[in-house]
Amino acid sequence: MGDVAAVPVIIDCDPGHDDALALLLAVGDPRLRLLGVTTVAGNQTLAKTTSNALKILALAGAIDVPVAAGCDRPLVGELTVAGDIHGESGLDGPDLDVPVGEAAGVHGVELMRRLILGYGEPVTLIATGPLTNVALLLRRHPEVLPYVRRVVFMGGSTDRGNTTPYGEFNIVTDPEAADIVLRSGLPVTMIGLNVTHQALATTQIIEEFRGMGTRLGVICADLMTFFASTYRRVFGFEHPPVHDPIAVACVIDPSIIVTVAVPVAVELVGAYTKGATVVDLHGRSGAVANADVAVGIEVEAFWRLLMAAVRRVG
Amino acid sequence: MGDVAAVPVIIDCDPGHDDALALLLAVGDPRLRLLGVTTVAGNQTLAKTTSNALKILALAGAIDVPVAAGCDRPLVGELTVAGDIHGESGLDGPDLDVPVGEAAGVHGVELMRRLILGYGEPVTLIATGPLTNVALLLRRHPEVLPYVRRVVFMGGSTDRGNTTPYGEFNIVTDPEAADIVLRSGLPVTMIGLNVTHQALATTQIIEEFRGMGTRLGVICADLMTFFASTYRRVFGFEHPPVHDPIAVACVIDPSIIVTVAVPVAVELVGAYTKGATVVDLHGRSGAVANADVAVGIEVEAFWRLLMAAVRRVG
Amino acid sequence: MGDVAAVPVIIDCDPGHDDALALLLAVGDPRLRLLGVTTVAGNQTLAKTTSNALKILALAGAIDVPVAAGCDRPLVGELTVAGDIHGESGLDGPDLDVPVGEAAGVHGVELMRRLILGYGEPVTLIATGPLTNVALLLRRHPEVLPYVRRVVFMGGSTDRGNTTPYGEFNIVTDPEAADIVLRSGLPVTMIGLNVTHQALATTQIIEEFRGMGTRLGVICADLMTFFASTYRRVFGFEHPPVHDPIAVACVIDPSIIVTVAVPVAVELVGAYTKGATVVDLHGRSGAVANADVAVGIEVEAFWRLLMAAVRRVG
Amino acid sequence: MGDVAAVPVIIDCDPGHDDALALLLAVGDPRLRLLGVTTVAGNQTLAKTTSNALKILALAGAIDVPVAAGCDRPLVGELTVAGDIHGESGLDGPDLDVPVGEAAGVHGVELMRRLILGYGEPVTLIATGPLTNVALLLRRHPEVLPYVRRVVFMGGSTDRGNTTPYGEFNIVTDPEAADIVLRSGLPVTMIGLNVTHQALATTQIIEEFRGMGTRLGVICADLMTFFASTYRRVFGFEHPPVHDPIAVACVIDPSIIVTVAVPVAVELVGAYTKGATVVDLHGRSGAVANADVAVGIEVEAFWRLLMAAVRRVG
Ligand SMILES: [Ca+2]
Ligand SMILES: [Ca+2]
Ligand SMILES: [Ca+2]
Ligand SMILES: [Ca+2]
Repeated sequence: MGDVAAVPVIIDCDPGHDDALALLLAVGDPRLRLLGVTTVAGNQTLAKTTSNALKILALAGAIDVPVAAGCDRPLVGELTVAGDIHGESGLDGPDLDVPVGEAAGVHGVELMRRLILGYGEPVTLIATGPLTNVALLLRRHPEVLPYVRRVVFMGGSTDRGNTTPYGEFNIVTDPEAADIVLRSGLPVTMIGLNVTHQALATTQIIEEFRGMGTRLGVICADLMTFFASTYRRVFGFEHPPVHDPIAVACVIDPSIIVTVAVPVAVELVGAYTKGATVVDLHGRSGAVANADVAVGIEVEAFWRLLMAAVRRVG
Repeated sequence: MGDVAAVPVIIDCDPGHDDALALLLAVGDPRLRLLGVTTVAGNQTLAKTTSNALKILALAGAIDVPVAAGCDRPLVGELTVAGDIHGESGLDGPDLDVPVGEAAGVHGVELMRRLILGYGEPVTLIATGPLTNVALLLRRHPEVLPYVRRVVFMGGSTDRGNTTPYGEFNIVTDPEAADIVLRSGLPVTMIGLNVTHQALATTQIIEEFRGMGTRLGVICADLMTFFASTYRRVFGFEHPPVHDPIAVACVIDPSIIVTVAVPVAVELVGAYTKGATVVDLHGRSGAVANADVAVGIEVEAFWRLLMAAVRRVG
Repeated sequence: MGDVAAVPVIIDCDPGHDDALALLLAVGDPRLRLLGVTTVAGNQTLAKTTSNALKILALAGAIDVPVAAGCDRPLVGELTVAGDIHGESGLDGPDLDVPVGEAAGVHGVELMRRLILGYGEPVTLIATGPLTNVALLLRRHPEVLPYVRRVVFMGGSTDRGNTTPYGEFNIVTDPEAADIVLRSGLPVTMIGLNVTHQALATTQIIEEFRGMGTRLGVICADLMTFFASTYRRVFGFEHPPVHDPIAVACVIDPSIIVTVAVPVAVELVGAYTKGATVVDLHGRSGAVANADVAVGIEVEAFWRLLMAAVRRVG
Repeated sequence: MGDVAAVPVIIDCDPGHDDALALLLAVGDPRLRLLGVTTVAGNQTLAKTTSNALKILALAGAIDVPVAAGCDRPLVGELTVAGDIHGESGLDGPDLDVPVGEAAGVHGVELMRRLILGYGEPVTLIATGPLTNVALLLRRHPEVLPYVRRVVFMGGSTDRGNTTPYGEFNIVTDPEAADIVLRSGLPVTMIGLNVTHQALATTQIIEEFRGMGTRLGVICADLMTFFASTYRRVFGFEHPPVHDPIAVACVIDPSIIVTVAVPVAVELVGAYTKGATVVDLHGRSGAVANADVAVGIEVEAFWRLLMAAVRRVG
């Protein structure tokens, strides 16, 4: 952190097991400068995701990174949390008892605005939860647009979803927000389930965390062990996918993912498909490309990058 | 203005010929205290509706009323202005050349927030344009909710619309915003086309304005004359309806309208009906009432109230 | 009946109190030649609507008119009958005990096809129930199209509905069928609630039926008395509207209704508005007119016509 | 053919290159008894798909198999043919000049009805085009239901589509028909793109056809060569998938596919996803299973089966 050439980023998240790893990666990799963290209701209620973000940053020793709570519900619809996947706390599994700092007294959207306008160069937004805060930022404070370098979000899919057959959790939770972001004209990178389902926390990965010999290593191992149990029960996965840190990783090192520039629409009106990201890979719709969509991932490189960051954090 | 017992209101508008009359009514009736005016894109672009609001307030001598520009586009969809109805300027017709004040340096939503939180008692929001600003206020600053006495909006219909067969302009322009307001839990009063189409600016009404012998009287007459010409051309109306001031009038004197407490939903997904307000007058849906919907109006009393206010303004 | 110049018609219906009057009108007026009657599930199940059609024809002495049962459910969705309006039998109220004939051994759609292709000149279809049979006829037997003079249907509305705020029962029950008929290219006349709600069976009307001194007069009075009771309970109407015979009446004497040629679409995808007939009275959509939509009715002339027919039947 | 134990089938198709192979497989495999062939508008207009079916049957020497033309358009929407994939004729590529028989004088739906009711045991319907005819059969002639053993259709997908990102051609062409079939209560097997995209007509496969030393072998090779060219151009496929014969193959030998019994819905209202088959593989919707959906295929076994049949036909 603090490196002159580091990429300035804000992480907007709903921790969440994989959000926790995303935060650790952003703290631990010197190629990023984490300006702030904002939270949103999603995997759990806003109070819980905010508390979880504070805990992870405290455990990572990143108490100087400002945290602010954003929206407690989606833009239009009602909130449905993912307690079946992330547990009652949103971070069930490890012992996360730690003295934490306090969230900033301002709304997450306001913190974003201040950090973006106050930094000397354009800032990258990494969103690993529903896009409510980001959409609200764009609508309420359009003056920030020139100072946002790009938006990288974990969400959606080019094929199947996880919340509905074609809908991924972050986008299904706030489809209108995703639509706003995808139509914003900003450079947008989408990291969907089609790639995140290739980055599985295998037994070997979990053991590597545990073998680090640090409290953080054990916590990561416990997080992934809990995540594995819910993914096995709900989806029949042998090993759980690790979605969110990939969105951070591709800002650190773009070579870990392969993207294509294609049109992406969000289905806002389907009876069964509301919240599906409709990715026109073969250009059949004639629409203009509005996102770089990840279609491939260097899984090994990703894990090396993540492990190194967690080790560096300590 | 300034009367101790006056009802504190903020008007969120998109002037617009009938918005202009709504502002004059709010300025001229001593039973209201107009805390501020916020503007939104709708009948015309935000720059034009803001300029128009400033002009009308200047003509009314209400230069102490703060004005702030809000959202320049709907929450989710794209903006389509109503140039066919309100002309290129949004207030075509009269000579409105007047030195105007400046809009406040803050966003309309921020002005609303400050006025609401800064006033000693709950404030009534009167919206006479698309509900974008109001919805954004509720999502971005939920802390204002206890201090909003109620929302009265001109928009929707219990029967036919004006922009589509079942859609009224303000709601069709931002259906998601209307949905947010109608689901907010706040007391909401809807003044729809079913009543506003009864308040027609007849030749006699226009002559009454013109006969006031004041510049404002002439302006009102010219506004209504232009409005009459577009309503005749587009809808075949003999005399144009005067929508927006009715929302103000019913805050001044609730007895001028008859309302029923019923369930109102906004159609967000129709191919032909997006933006329709679906008012369940006969309780067939089993849904809970979430709005007081105007179903009757004392037309004569309304015009007396409006004329008296315009005369008082001068 | 049998008059050389009489207009040949087929009535497709779901009796239903007002369908019963429609059948009596078609039997009793010499200007029509009733070739056959087909039934459809709607107000009640197919078995009940078929039995009811047979009863009414038997009571009218029209035992030579062939009756055939058509579709027992809508084209796409599920059937919801209107027992709350028409009672358990579909014709609750009067004593309808009468020896009835039998329905033809062929499907209603097949009977329509045979009657249309077998008659020497084009035939008028009058539909007073959901349009399932008519739509199926057009899709399954497109060869009949040149021999259908026109389709007149009772259904839809230019303003409010009766089953949902914007949906009328016949169209809401089978929106896809209505869409097929309205896009068929055939001349289509729509008799909607906006006119049928003006033809009310007042106390005076009911007494006129009862005063005829015939069994049929008493039956009509009892039908309307029952209908009045459900319309009062469900919709708060003082007197019940008599929808279906207006569709028959306007074939007998077009001067009893005023129509406009306008574009009509059926909303197939709304969350709250599915089945609404979206009538573009002001040509704002730019679509081509595809129906003659009733917008006015000569109520007195209608009742004279209906009363005369019932008297003639005896 | 004619084998006592053979499974009686009707093929409803829209030839189409892969439909042609499906017909050859049904003719050539002794474990099926092909009672009749009905055609539907889809890959090309009804006149062309009917002509194509007649040609393929003539080339196969199956002139005793009755053919009847069914629906020339989808149930509700408009027809869009797939000329970009199957060419102007629907079977572009080979020389198909052959004296053909005539289509039966009855509608395809009527032929289906007669064949089903006239055969001594329940019949299997194999649909390799839009499901218009099958849906119309179920709605117009519900009396056939007890005599339909099951419906096997090629269509839909558990993941991506080919006509829209989530929509496969047959289902997108007539989503309402697919909905009717999937809600019919009949045993339904869905063979979607997720398995058909694994059965690719590689260069080796095409050479095997060509090497048969028969006119039919050359035709099959030419069909696949043309199909390869359009799939390469439109979708970037190296080798084209062979969809339709898999639906036939799995009736011959169920062991060539793996299926799961799951809920399948058809999206009827999406702006971007209309016609998507929404397959709830993980039981998250709580809906009841209504189809056996293919999720795996024994590609080698499939090709052996198809090659043997084509060789047998000659
Ligand atoms: Ca997350
Ligand atoms: Ca306005
Ligand atoms: Ca009826
Ligand atoms: Ca096919």
